[in-house]
Amino acid sequence: MAAPGPVHEALAALPLVDHHCHGAVTADLTADAFASLLTEGAAWPGVSPFDTPAGVAVRRHCAPLLDLPRHAPPADYVARRARLGWQEVNRRFLRASGAGVFCVDTGYAPHPVTTPAELAAAAGAAACEVVRLERIAESVAARGVAAGAYAAEVRAAAEAAVRRPGVVAVKSVAAYRTGFALDPERPAAAEVTEAAGRWLARGGRLADPVLVRHLLWTAVELGLPLQLHTGFGDADLRLHRADPALLTDWLHRTAGTIPVLLLHCWPYHRQAAYLSAVFEQVYLDVGLALHHTGPARCRAVLEEALEITPFRKLLYSSDAYGVAEFHHLGALCFRQGLADLLQDRVDADELSLADALRIAAWTGRDNARRLYGPPVSEPAREPSGRPTRKV
Amino acid sequence: MAAPGPVHEALAALPLVDHHCHGAVTADLTADAFASLLTEGAAWPGVSPFDTPAGVAVRRHCAPLLDLPRHAPPADYVARRARLGWQEVNRRFLRASGAGVFCVDTGYAPHPVTTPAELAAAAGAAACEVVRLERIAESVAARGVAAGAYAAEVRAAAEAAVRRPGVVAVKSVAAYRTGFALDPERPAAAEVTEAAGRWLARGGRLADPVLVRHLLWTAVELGLPLQLHTGFGDADLRLHRADPALLTDWLHRTAGTIPVLLLHCWPYHRQAAYLSAVFEQVYLDVGLALHHTGPARCRAVLEEALEITPFRKLLYSSDAYGVAEFHHLGALCFRQGLADLLQDRVDADELSLADALRIAAWTGRDNARRLYGPPVSEPAREPSGRPTRKV
Amino acid sequence: MAAPGPVHEALAALPLVDHHCHGAVTADLTADAFASLLTEGAAWPGVSPFDTPAGVAVRRHCAPLLDLPRHAPPADYVARRARLGWQEVNRRFLRASGAGVFCVDTGYAPHPVTTPAELAAAAGAAACEVVRLERIAESVAARGVAAGAYAAEVRAAAEAAVRRPGVVAVKSVAAYRTGFALDPERPAAAEVTEAAGRWLARGGRLADPVLVRHLLWTAVELGLPLQLHTGFGDADLRLHRADPALLTDWLHRTAGTIPVLLLHCWPYHRQAAYLSAVFEQVYLDVGLALHHTGPARCRAVLEEALEITPFRKLLYSSDAYGVAEFHHLGALCFRQGLADLLQDRVDADELSLADALRIAAWTGRDNARRLYGPPVSEPAREPSGRPTRKV
Repeated sequence: MAAPGPVHEALAALPLVDHHCHGAVTADLTADAFASLLTEGAAWPGVSPFDTPAGVAVRRHCAPLLDLPRHAPPADYVARRARLGWQEVNRRFLRASGAGVFCVDTGYAPHPVTTPAELAAAAGAAACEVVRLERIAESVAARGVAAGAYAAEVRAAAEAAVRRPGVVAVKSVAAYRTGFALDPERPAAAEVTEAAGRWLARGGRLADPVLVRHLLWTAVELGLPLQLHTGFGDADLRLHRADPALLTDWLHRTAGTIPVLLLHCWPYHRQAAYLSAVFEQVYLDVGLALHHTGPARCRAVLEEALEITPFRKLLYSSDAYGVAEFHHLGALCFRQGLADLLQDRVDADELSLADALRIAAWTGRDNARRLYGPPVSEPAREPSGRPTRKV
Repeated sequence: MAAPGPVHEALAALPLVDHHCHGAVTADLTADAFASLLTEGAAWPGVSPFDTPAGVAVRRHCAPLLDLPRHAPPADYVARRARLGWQEVNRRFLRASGAGVFCVDTGYAPHPVTTPAELAAAAGAAACEVVRLERIAESVAARGVAAGAYAAEVRAAAEAAVRRPGVVAVKSVAAYRTGFALDPERPAAAEVTEAAGRWLARGGRLADPVLVRHLLWTAVELGLPLQLHTGFGDADLRLHRADPALLTDWLHRTAGTIPVLLLHCWPYHRQAAYLSAVFEQVYLDVGLALHHTGPARCRAVLEEALEITPFRKLLYSSDAYGVAEFHHLGALCFRQGLADLLQDRVDADELSLADALRIAAWTGRDNARRLYGPPVSEPAREPSGRPTRKV
Repeated sequence: MAAPGPVHEALAALPLVDHHCHGAVTADLTADAFASLLTEGAAWPGVSPFDTPAGVAVRRHCAPLLDLPRHAPPADYVARRARLGWQEVNRRFLRASGAGVFCVDTGYAPHPVTTPAELAAAAGAAACEVVRLERIAESVAARGVAAGAYAAEVRAAAEAAVRRPGVVAVKSVAAYRTGFALDPERPAAAEVTEAAGRWLARGGRLADPVLVRHLLWTAVELGLPLQLHTGFGDADLRLHRADPALLTDWLHRTAGTIPVLLLHCWPYHRQAAYLSAVFEQVYLDVGLALHHTGPARCRAVLEEALEITPFRKLLYSSDAYGVAEFHHLGALCFRQGLADLLQDRVDADELSLADALRIAAWTGRDNARRLYGPPVSEPAREPSGRPTRKV
């Protein structure tokens, strides 16, 4: 580990933009419910979700924020968490994250979770919203639509969704639904109608390759930055089809239109770095991997991700969902991993301190501000009138 | 390298379960024959197999066990080995491995090698057996079978093979024969008969996609843990088809049935780690990579493998074949690499010592005991009546 | 970073063979033109190409050679470079590289660049030539050929090209044109004629799968070592199709014919290492990745590449194109990264010093000499009669 230095101080003080996360649960969790939120797998008999790198990191770095000793036993942790209540737990971790702005994906919420405004209030920060496109399409289908009107209604619903105040980006989980080995061309109207007819008749979640492609091209029409899940996630993935390199043909066809943010990326973060180095519109983060690999490996993952990535192209996200521990841990891992690697380079005279401080501020905050613009770069005050944390 | 500490001591004293290895050669080897067993390639003119990371590790860590200085020249090494004779060489390295139980794949033996009982005796340890499914099918074919009886006879032969005492698992080399981009569905009886007809008429080794799939589903019926070669091996592979992520659809269909142990995995160990994190039945090791990368890189490979792997899901194997040096080196690399990474985390206060010791014991021994049950967790005494090393 | 030791000294003094590079620009560059040569992407508004790992490395390690302070601001760097003029800039960096021989790919030159002889003269070194096969085929097409004569004329043109003095290898950019998921069989004459007919009628660059395969098999007939772009490059790639593992079937069919040199490889350098470990004819380097990842990550990339690679199989290349900074940086990164990793192993007593020195000399120079023979191992004097740097 690097000796702490000025880069550590700068990153510790930097109000991060967490450009992709989810809400925190707004209910007290049973021990089992809490444990299951610690992993991307399910809860398995005889295998504690605490016995993972993320679980170890929670006991080490989150326990003290609940007034417990470092490395507290899981049972103590869960008991103390329950005693404090979800509001206090959320408040402590969200504030500890030191994030100034959260960009919240509101399209995934199997549990009752905070709205962006509630997250912002608990954190003493600001929040923006990210609209999930598959959810829009599924809502259109759910309320009933003729196949021939599908494209227009999805477009209208998406336009309406992104016109709401505070919306800064759209997101697609095409990686989950079909993977990225898609025909890169914009589907013809007739093709969309036909595919919509099939899907609307059959029901279920949207996973038709034509309709998934259609949503990616809808994102291009909407004009907002597009966040794409890539790499690591839950068992619903086919990991090898979530390699962002598979998107190359589509990136060629959409160059010059919208920014594309590759989320998570691990274990394809080098592939994502390549794309960010050769496509103007491509950005990446290593969210989700930060808290799942924990502080012991964040530096390593960040170093791989930064091997060839232009410093304007890396962003910070936690991809935390459900437990506010992860909003905190993501930030902690990012700050520590990035500070260690930059400070070591400064100490070895491979990088000037001024450059290191600039890279830290860019990746932790400024790249997101530059990309998303005013709602992120000039966050509104909270409804309460209490000034938001200065970012 | 980490300063040695209590985790090093604990791992040094731990009787490992080497859950996947092969026999050691039971004959004196010529210099060329020995050298060719050092690599996964063949012996090439002008390129000494000692000029590899594995060769360097053998000269460094195995020479002293043959009473030679560290880094002994290859010629000295080979001469001394020949002088000691294969029994003594096997005995020294197998005992030095400190393994308490070896699970021996008896289905690959181009050379005359030790039986599990002979390996156990030489090591002063216990041994169990792993039955290779392709070999069963090929034996059935070799003794003559009608296509329509193929499935039933393979099933019966496999049942008979796994009912023998000491058998703890089956293994498939589907990775070599077809790769993992297989139809995940259980093949229909008629399909198997038809494919068997084609294969039995043509002869050769079993590489028909339907029959390879059929063996994977036969493993499900047998109910024993299934070891799967994945990743690194010899030139017979198509490495990219041995990426375990390609198995995802099959893992979904077989969830809730048998444990699946992904062997070797390198360079897809992160993909394997993902599968182990999201599928209850998936486990992994980085055998083979341990001695081929050598002590200089084992820690790095283990760290990548452990980035998100639940601590209940990593096992130890050497995958040693032929030269007992590798049964020893695998163990040495595993102990040192894992101890270095865990001790460093303890020293940095990222992990408690108690947790580190638990993770060491789990991955080196207890996960295998838990998974394979009594033949591994309560190894029988050796036939000689000499008590086996306590595990 | 390792404490400098004898391995660092040895590598600092070693006249490298840069077995794959391109010419340096023979014109003064505008600030924009220079900046765009720093990246594999294009120049993008608002994103300085200096804000990359390569840009940081140029300011750190190249600025002093232009009499500027370390970490000089980009504007100062570009101004000073212009003031010195391209001849002096090229001379300083090429000499600083300490390469004794450059093998120059003359088939890619969108800018006016040095010939091999000019590069040699500026460097005070020797130069050999690498002939790009796609360029040969495209020249044949450009001067007009009947489809039925295509194969014979390409073969004749290639024979003529490689018979010129100083030519040591051929190169293919099949990775760019089709990727490696090609039919591994030698295409039949009729197939080639038919494909040539289609291509000659349509025009454009050669990207027909049959004709790309035909060039790979033409290389086999020519009998010279074949350099293959793999992995990292510009946006024209589909990165996942440049994974060298996809070449396995072709490598089986061509075993025993020509050496195959996998260039760059990142992020598939472990896959390349596997191929080099199991195929006698396969070699690799991590050129391009060296200067793009910079000194901060070269060691890491080299360590991964060397995990299982036989020490006879790794070569050095810069893959520098256009700016002589990269001929220098590649060499600097290789020397430092390799010295750090070998010296650390010596210091930990994992490797003897004699072995470390041998591995350093092999990978930096001797493997290339052995592979390419006299034009590399006994470089001619420069035309000027000035003795070339002793290699």
